[in-house]
Amino acid sequence: MVVEKFNKMAIKDYQECKVYIRPVRDVIDMIGSKWKLPILVALGFKDHRFNELERQIQGITPRMLSRELKDLEFNKLVKRVVSCPDDNIVKYGLTEEGKSLEQVITAMRIWGTDYRKKIMKKNDFELR
Amino acid sequence: MVVEKFNKMAIKDYQECKVYIRPVRDVIDMIGSKWKLPILVALGFKDHRFNELERQIQGITPRMLSRELKDLEFNKLVKRVVSCPDDNIVKYGLTEEGKSLEQVITAMRIWGTDYRKKIMKKNDFELR
Repeated sequence: MVVEKFNKMAIKDYQECKVYIRPVRDVIDMIGSKWKLPILVALGFKDHRFNELERQIQGITPRMLSRELKDLEFNKLVKRVVSCPDDNIVKYGLTEEGKSLEQVITAMRIWGTDYRKKIMKKNDFELR
Repeated sequence: MVVEKFNKMAIKDYQECKVYIRPVRDVIDMIGSKWKLPILVALGFKDHRFNELERQIQGITPRMLSRELKDLEFNKLVKRVVSCPDDNIVKYGLTEEGKSLEQVITAMRIWGTDYRKKIMKKNDFELR
């Protein structure tokens, strides 16, 4: 009886754990790939044309950039902006969702920078 | 000359971009693996004994749990706590660094939960 109660509690906790974990995983999936994070960071600075992004993010191929931008658009984090209607210049920028995600990325960056200073230096890790 | 200036600017931006990205990647590396996030979330609730963690995190093997805990200890996010010196009961808990990382995870969770509600429901995605 006690064991049963404990198991039920454990399952309840685990379910609660899963509810906690899913949305965090979503964020990791959305920004964890090699290129999405640099794209979002670059667009956090300012809107970019496709070619500007390609130049900015060293090593990315046009094909990869195109695919990643499509993913980000599909996830409603990035949108196309016609910045100069006369010349039909298209730029990519962050949506409201993208901007709010950028705040989360900033929180991660601040923590990570602080961590590097405190822990990695203390351990004499090589700062990449 | 103009091109040279542009290239210098681009490289400066890219360097700046890298400085932004590295600490975020550190966070992703630290919590992105299949098991580290559930372990940190579980320990965010309360300190756990090894067996409790094993029960709590469905699917993890003792070997994996042991390895992940070692990693987390090495990264100074998790520490061993002797909760009951007489019985020598060892529990695992979050360090100060681990606790502050948990706040970042909470920011990710809040954003992710909000995102699921707004975007995924709108798109009729299946909520896993």
